[in-house]
Amino acid sequence: MNTVDFDRYDHVRPIRWTGEVLELLDQRVLPFETFYRRLHTFDEVAAAIRDLVVRGAPAIGISAAWGVVLAAKQVSAGDGQAALKQLQPAFDVLNASRPTAVNLAWALGRMRAVLAKSGSDWLSALEQEALAIATEDLAANRLMGRAGAELIDVGSGVLTHCNTGSLATAGFGTALGVIRAGVAEGRIDKVFAGETRPWNQGARLTVWELQEDGIPATLIADAAAAHLMKTGQVQWVVVGADRICANGDTANKIGTYQLAIAARHHGVKVMVVAPSSTVDMDTASGEHIEIEERDPGELLTALGKRTVAEGIVAWNPVFDVTPHDLIDAIVTERGVILSPDETGMRAVFGTP
Amino acid sequence: MNTVDFDRYDHVRPIRWTGEVLELLDQRVLPFETFYRRLHTFDEVAAAIRDLVVRGAPAIGISAAWGVVLAAKQVSAGDGQAALKQLQPAFDVLNASRPTAVNLAWALGRMRAVLAKSGSDWLSALEQEALAIATEDLAANRLMGRAGAELIDVGSGVLTHCNTGSLATAGFGTALGVIRAGVAEGRIDKVFAGETRPWNQGARLTVWELQEDGIPATLIADAAAAHLMKTGQVQWVVVGADRICANGDTANKIGTYQLAIAARHHGVKVMVVAPSSTVDMDTASGEHIEIEERDPGELLTALGKRTVAEGIVAWNPVFDVTPHDLIDAIVTERGVILSPDETGMRAVFGTP
Repeated sequence: MNTVDFDRYDHVRPIRWTGEVLELLDQRVLPFETFYRRLHTFDEVAAAIRDLVVRGAPAIGISAAWGVVLAAKQVSAGDGQAALKQLQPAFDVLNASRPTAVNLAWALGRMRAVLAKSGSDWLSALEQEALAIATEDLAANRLMGRAGAELIDVGSGVLTHCNTGSLATAGFGTALGVIRAGVAEGRIDKVFAGETRPWNQGARLTVWELQEDGIPATLIADAAAAHLMKTGQVQWVVVGADRICANGDTANKIGTYQLAIAARHHGVKVMVVAPSSTVDMDTASGEHIEIEERDPGELLTALGKRTVAEGIVAWNPVFDVTPHDLIDAIVTERGVILSPDETGMRAVFGTP
Repeated sequence: MNTVDFDRYDHVRPIRWTGEVLELLDQRVLPFETFYRRLHTFDEVAAAIRDLVVRGAPAIGISAAWGVVLAAKQVSAGDGQAALKQLQPAFDVLNASRPTAVNLAWALGRMRAVLAKSGSDWLSALEQEALAIATEDLAANRLMGRAGAELIDVGSGVLTHCNTGSLATAGFGTALGVIRAGVAEGRIDKVFAGETRPWNQGARLTVWELQEDGIPATLIADAAAAHLMKTGQVQWVVVGADRICANGDTANKIGTYQLAIAARHHGVKVMVVAPSSTVDMDTASGEHIEIEERDPGELLTALGKRTVAEGIVAWNPVFDVTPHDLIDAIVTERGVILSPDETGMRAVFGTP
């Protein structure tokens, strides 16, 4: 199936570098406006990350790398080491823009390492590294897309959660990349997406970007997933990951765990798709992951208007942990782990 | 525990009969406005049912009964049989206002039966019957509340779904009645309610009416339920029912099935609470229940504003079926069935 044209299913790009400025597709106003914000300074990039103009761990990392390049254009220094000293405040501000995103620190680490070993060509080396981070992300997504799609039988339906698509990456997406590849290869007939309350990434972003690429998708309420599975319309749940532990336990958007339980109940399979930068072999299992809780206000308003009575209390955990024994496959650009456990993970990602 | 004061936890009334007009608490504008619409004719009552001013199967049935009384006030007839003929159009219009609600037909059947056997006092007989339907509903709810609460250990947390409260009944509620009783008796420490997309009955109605009664409740996203169970904060899922089959399979608001699967996975118990008028011994099992699908537009807008891109398709099943083997107790005013199956159901509800 090497002749499949993935480009046909991959039009959305959240991040554009003009050589002078960074353009970010403002995800706060999607799907109603398709508007690229033009950013001229690293401060503007940090603010855009903080304010969710850009979201999705890989997309945040790439944006931060370009933020370093914008900062570098304001600095003159004889070599990389000298530039690194001057750029330290920019690194600090960018790193603090979303403290919990693993890819952010990882991308900034790559930029720092390049600077540390560069001579007088440090500015062009930085620009090349940012481009490499983006290019490698897209390539990894297409590789994962192909590898994940191979697990899916022709004529299957899939259900996804949150947004793991082009909008969350340099392009093509992680879990949504597998779905794109599966559709392109004729394996997937039906795509369902959960709303993903309270941020509605599924409703606002996922079905929009699939529509942009001509992939018909059907939106469902998060609570309708088990009933959908019972109707026999989906064979796989395909999701992304925020962190994957050494035993395969996976932290992802709230609701993933509930989907995995319902999937197991119905004999529907669960696939986690994420770049290896998401794998954390230093964390033994999901018990050691602290679940971030966000502002309950997210559950109390919609479109800026209050939807719930004054005085109501809400609980708003953002992630949950799906234990590895509810996961049928973890797909990364370094390999696919079936029925993941510590042994399978170590076979691909080594020992600490 | 007979001295517990249930009145303290039971202030909300969706239906008020003044002797002249019917006043319905407009549930479309809750929780932002507490506004009773005054209805003078059976046509206005039918419209109010159709337009969701009032919702919840028992509340719909009671409202329709008062609608018959309003119609009767416009008619003069020598006896009930004569009045029945003149009132047939009113019965037809009321019966068609929400075709799928079991309680609606049941309540109108009671009114018709009273008319058929009444003499010249038929008007006061009708008024007494409507009052009896409402009074019996409240009494049944308090009975069920007490019976259901007995199953709950002191110090428990509970999760509920949709709105099964005072707002859906003459008062006190079904599943929410068990929760009221459990709180009143000191058995329940924590109450959680799911948003219940796409209508948000949990977010708009359930947490509001509990707050009105001084019962602290915490709102969660529907997708957060399994994670909540994993934290050990809930011991029971307590829900209502739209139809209970002869084997205990239960149709209820979309999402109930998913909660029951997650509950079983965590050793959390599931209680269904509904009046016996919800039991349908003529339907053998859930496979025979047709699941109503509603306008997908409900998933595409919020507060009247579009939340999803144009062209997006949604699937909006309103109910799902929870098989009896995922249910630990069915509580009705005629008895409690533990680990329900056909034998247990027949022991309480007889053979067809």
